[in-house]
Amino acid sequence: MGVTLAVDGMGGDQAPQMVVDGLALASIRYPTTSFILFGDEKTLSALVALHSHLKDHVTIVHTDEVVTSEMKPSAAIRGLPQSSMRLAIKAVAEGKAQGVVSAGNTGAYMALAKMVLKTLPGIERPALASLVPTLKSESVMLDLGANVECNARNLEQFALMGVMFARYVLSLCKPKVGVLNVGSEEMKGHAYVKEAADLIRAGSIGSSFHGFIEGDDITKGTVDVIVTDGFTGNVVLKSGEGVMQLAMTYVREGFKNSIFASLGYFLARPMLEKLKSRLDHRRYNGGIWLGLNGVAIKSHGGTDALGFSHAIALAIDMVTSGVNEHIVAEFKSEEAHLKKKAAV
Amino acid sequence: MGVTLAVDGMGGDQAPQMVVDGLALASIRYPTTSFILFGDEKTLSALVALHSHLKDHVTIVHTDEVVTSEMKPSAAIRGLPQSSMRLAIKAVAEGKAQGVVSAGNTGAYMALAKMVLKTLPGIERPALASLVPTLKSESVMLDLGANVECNARNLEQFALMGVMFARYVLSLCKPKVGVLNVGSEEMKGHAYVKEAADLIRAGSIGSSFHGFIEGDDITKGTVDVIVTDGFTGNVVLKSGEGVMQLAMTYVREGFKNSIFASLGYFLARPMLEKLKSRLDHRRYNGGIWLGLNGVAIKSHGGTDALGFSHAIALAIDMVTSGVNEHIVAEFKSEEAHLKKKAAV
Repeated sequence: MGVTLAVDGMGGDQAPQMVVDGLALASIRYPTTSFILFGDEKTLSALVALHSHLKDHVTIVHTDEVVTSEMKPSAAIRGLPQSSMRLAIKAVAEGKAQGVVSAGNTGAYMALAKMVLKTLPGIERPALASLVPTLKSESVMLDLGANVECNARNLEQFALMGVMFARYVLSLCKPKVGVLNVGSEEMKGHAYVKEAADLIRAGSIGSSFHGFIEGDDITKGTVDVIVTDGFTGNVVLKSGEGVMQLAMTYVREGFKNSIFASLGYFLARPMLEKLKSRLDHRRYNGGIWLGLNGVAIKSHGGTDALGFSHAIALAIDMVTSGVNEHIVAEFKSEEAHLKKKAAV
Repeated sequence: MGVTLAVDGMGGDQAPQMVVDGLALASIRYPTTSFILFGDEKTLSALVALHSHLKDHVTIVHTDEVVTSEMKPSAAIRGLPQSSMRLAIKAVAEGKAQGVVSAGNTGAYMALAKMVLKTLPGIERPALASLVPTLKSESVMLDLGANVECNARNLEQFALMGVMFARYVLSLCKPKVGVLNVGSEEMKGHAYVKEAADLIRAGSIGSSFHGFIEGDDITKGTVDVIVTDGFTGNVVLKSGEGVMQLAMTYVREGFKNSIFASLGYFLARPMLEKLKSRLDHRRYNGGIWLGLNGVAIKSHGGTDALGFSHAIALAIDMVTSGVNEHIVAEFKSEEAHLKKKAAV
């Protein structure tokens, strides 16, 4: 039997069309996946009807309520009991779907998902994770903004969840995890960062621990899992997007500088298009809530159908890999590990 | 009368040759500047002799002691009373030079500079600042790692020093300052970051305050002065360097992809060389210690002569602009401003 995903049909700048087109794209690659689509029935069914291969895989559940992008999380929680976002999350909590995807309001999504799905047993704080491109391939980085303040225990849990994600979703046999710091030496950095390193090293994933990494290790691919607090993670991710844009602007401007460069541009254009798609944030579209009792993926609000289909693919990979079950099992073994250590 | 700079002749991976060649380059652009060069007399004088235009502008002061790149700050302080780095800093403290430049061990340089030069009156913590490239031009960012833990008052002082730097060294009439945060809304972020924003807004540079900025605002050039704690600043700067390298690797690889792209590369090559120099970290070579009682510039350890000459140019600009005197004056006016506010 295939995976069933709950989808917020109304979230995202270009929703609902982008959402339905995204499902149509994903459905080609994952023909056994079913979707429960929440939102305005009339609009959604007209859009779905445009994709003949999609129709049989989509069930539409009507609702009028939509969480807008400007809405505060508290307003979405209190004021909209039937929002498309909330109903989609609820479908996972009720076992009707195995995962949820929304491109809507991040803050509201996080608050609703935490409230409705709750955290996995043992997890204190869910984290927002994402894949990031590296010189080697790609790595997973967390937390990217769900928790501005973190303690050592939170970081340790992020490390454990990240390693499970790398092992089961990215299929890495021996993922390496590193904690972001201002230097690779043991003596540097915040006290809670150093304490987190000690906890990880002593814990059940200790053999996967690389140690501290610095900012430039992220894109070097020094480790497969990058652990940091939500403040640093958010700033690093966004500033990195900014630097990438700056680099591409320089390249584009450079090509306009002379006739020869313009001719060079003409010849190199297919390569540059390929480059663009390689750098395309749609490929890295999909904020992953790790630590929730259910698979939940946040698609970028400004994404298009292709980007949304990547978020869908990520949700399917997470469901089929059983990553959440592995996280729970690893936590039990971690607790046993700590008890055994304490007993010695 | 021209500026006199004290220069650590022995600091940097390619020192002392890179240092002397850097002075020779700088001396062409700044022919009235004199240098006091500290290090091995025999080696240095032989290198200086190779540049006929430099000879009359350099005084060599011999010392055998060198701070190596692996040395701990404490070892450099206790074990090497006559290191070339320390003597160069001392020359500023004793009024023999107006600024100091070294490409040596960062930690030792910071510790020695703080100890020997002391901080400017009123400044609690000196900060490490640097110029960063933006889509508009360039901005100054601080702290980049001198202070891992910062409170609101530290950030406020960084803002004030940064604004003075932007006004007098970058010659911006109305520099804008922003505090790095996870969102531009007032309610988000660490408590001390929000408190810092309140302090800056209420202080003497309040009219220059833009508010919170996010990671991608750095390269957008949203503000001229970016204020953050040393942990975040260090990680953001290094991760940004990593992203830039990733982007350039993609471009290089892309050009190798086909015969047409290779031909395109051939034609676009002068542009790409120009691009490389635009992105060249040598242009942004020069960590600026702000808040010390004397001008002190840290050149990148791995830099070459051109990069070192940029660090020298930055030191000269800082001396001639009188930025430290302006910082002191602004602090006095800030205190008066606060007293006046308190009295109301």
